[in-house]
Amino acid sequence: MESSKNPNKSLPPINSREKAKKLVLSLQDEICVGLEKVDGEGQFTEESWDRAEGGGGRSRVMSNGKIFEQGGVNFSEVYGQELPPSIINQRPEAKGHPWFATGTSMVLHPKSPYIPTVHLNYRYFEAGPVWWFGGGADLTPFYPYLEDARHFHQTHKDACDSISPELHKVFKPWCDEYFFLKHRQETRGIGGIFYDYQDGSGFLYKGQDSNSNAYSISKELGPKSFSWEELFGLAKACGQAFLPAYTPIIEKRKNEEYGDKERQFQLYRRGRYVEFNLVWDRGTIFGLQTNGRTESILMSLPPLARWEYAYKAKDNSREALLTDLFTKPQDWLNDSTLDDLCIKHNAIN
Amino acid sequence: MESSKNPNKSLPPINSREKAKKLVLSLQDEICVGLEKVDGEGQFTEESWDRAEGGGGRSRVMSNGKIFEQGGVNFSEVYGQELPPSIINQRPEAKGHPWFATGTSMVLHPKSPYIPTVHLNYRYFEAGPVWWFGGGADLTPFYPYLEDARHFHQTHKDACDSISPELHKVFKPWCDEYFFLKHRQETRGIGGIFYDYQDGSGFLYKGQDSNSNAYSISKELGPKSFSWEELFGLAKACGQAFLPAYTPIIEKRKNEEYGDKERQFQLYRRGRYVEFNLVWDRGTIFGLQTNGRTESILMSLPPLARWEYAYKAKDNSREALLTDLFTKPQDWLNDSTLDDLCIKHNAIN
Repeated sequence: MESSKNPNKSLPPINSREKAKKLVLSLQDEICVGLEKVDGEGQFTEESWDRAEGGGGRSRVMSNGKIFEQGGVNFSEVYGQELPPSIINQRPEAKGHPWFATGTSMVLHPKSPYIPTVHLNYRYFEAGPVWWFGGGADLTPFYPYLEDARHFHQTHKDACDSISPELHKVFKPWCDEYFFLKHRQETRGIGGIFYDYQDGSGFLYKGQDSNSNAYSISKELGPKSFSWEELFGLAKACGQAFLPAYTPIIEKRKNEEYGDKERQFQLYRRGRYVEFNLVWDRGTIFGLQTNGRTESILMSLPPLARWEYAYKAKDNSREALLTDLFTKPQDWLNDSTLDDLCIKHNAIN
Repeated sequence: MESSKNPNKSLPPINSREKAKKLVLSLQDEICVGLEKVDGEGQFTEESWDRAEGGGGRSRVMSNGKIFEQGGVNFSEVYGQELPPSIINQRPEAKGHPWFATGTSMVLHPKSPYIPTVHLNYRYFEAGPVWWFGGGADLTPFYPYLEDARHFHQTHKDACDSISPELHKVFKPWCDEYFFLKHRQETRGIGGIFYDYQDGSGFLYKGQDSNSNAYSISKELGPKSFSWEELFGLAKACGQAFLPAYTPIIEKRKNEEYGDKERQFQLYRRGRYVEFNLVWDRGTIFGLQTNGRTESILMSLPPLARWEYAYKAKDNSREALLTDLFTKPQDWLNDSTLDDLCIKHNAIN
């Protein structure tokens, strides 16, 4: 039915929904197991919920762990009769069709200011003749460790490269652009990867749904087609890259002692996380304004955050290095001038 | 010029801008003096700033006072060549005209969970043939004291009544509707008064610019005309009602001891304040998305706030009374069943 209108170059397998659901469910499982292991004390509490309009989810939350102050890993599978206008604008072929979406999303707020906050989301949509994958992961450090930023990026680049070397050079700047606080002229953190509307027809990078004034990156890269299986493989590879991208950073930083100054800076920077999520994050705002499950949507907010009028980090401090260098888009993997800049700062501290 | 298109029944005086500016400046002064007096220790720090596009402001901030953990009182006077579309939609006659706006706004976050957070804003606009006043004040308690809610409302009702007995019955529900968190189905607090676009032509209550699904209150009440002088008098009376509406509550509550449980509930409820301001407050979002002065706009955010997944207050607790009764629109001044409901709860605690 309407297959002539199908813009996708590759047809999904007959059991596409089941495969996608199984993938994101097992990602949720694997990640929770890995996080409990690295935490050593904290455990996830599970809550299942139904959605009145169709579908439901499984939320897992950890509070007061040894490493994680608060965090959650969500799974959801939802259905509906018609996608909202904001998505139909991006995918007009989906108009008038019932839709299906499944995904997993996660935000972790560690206790130590030396361990970055991290976010992950992988999702799959189908609506009539169209289907697409989206997702990514990004890191928000409070203190500037160049080697940690590079490790997170390298691990995700390797995952993208395992599908195609064309992917990372699009998904990395897309992440910088999406997680941008225009009112602060800052990125949320050091980025990672982000992609959306990947339907196999090439990299249609649509700037209009993000903070399009932030950077001017090419609006179309490609076109290069990918099959459903390849894009499924991409989500799997990137999702499975999460633990190796993040847990070594925890191991490296968890025993570094910090004081009240570092804690206060962390709480202050967490305020930026709140600002991004509530002011700019398309998914959050859309969910809140359309009767989404509020508690699951706002699981991304930090356990504690603070605001201070006109705060400014001291010149040459680590806090200034974070603000000046680690909240601006950087070519973490290739720019060797970053070493000098970081060494200069670290030498002073 | 174009005076034939003037929808206002009353012409402003020749020195209208100067008068309005003087009013909001003196409100800022009087309120700051009164707040420093009631705090006893904290003092405001002043910072003046210029706006590249025209105008500027005077921000006053208090941190770590005896009563006030953080708070700010802003004055601003700004000019521009053309109002943004969101305002032009409300006032099409202003299209193509240079505009002028002046106002004062304030948010205070007290330390004690027994003293409510409070917000005030009074402003005046001119654009070509049109002018209008807007403003209000609303109270956000963390613990439920019926007498405090009634005192705040009664004082503002008296101020409105000093101009006309028609005003309060519109401005009170307008406030409940504006300060509503749709994603929580809660009001931000116990309300107060709110009005906008008061141009003397009657109470044109335009629901479309707020969370219009919240309540259905009459969209037009009146029309009854008010002169510029009367509306100026309204802003003055309401602005001057603030200290007598709020400071007696401080005096009554400041010596009540509280523990960590109450502090934690306050921080949790402050999270709602953040959610309202960043997700629903028209002024905040508009300011952030259009290069407003971020630090002044976000002065309204609390010094510290927390989020907790799926928190639920214990049955029959004061926290439950706050959640069940004090975050729903109530007829504080006339509904005598509120006494029984509050007494029943207080008896249990």
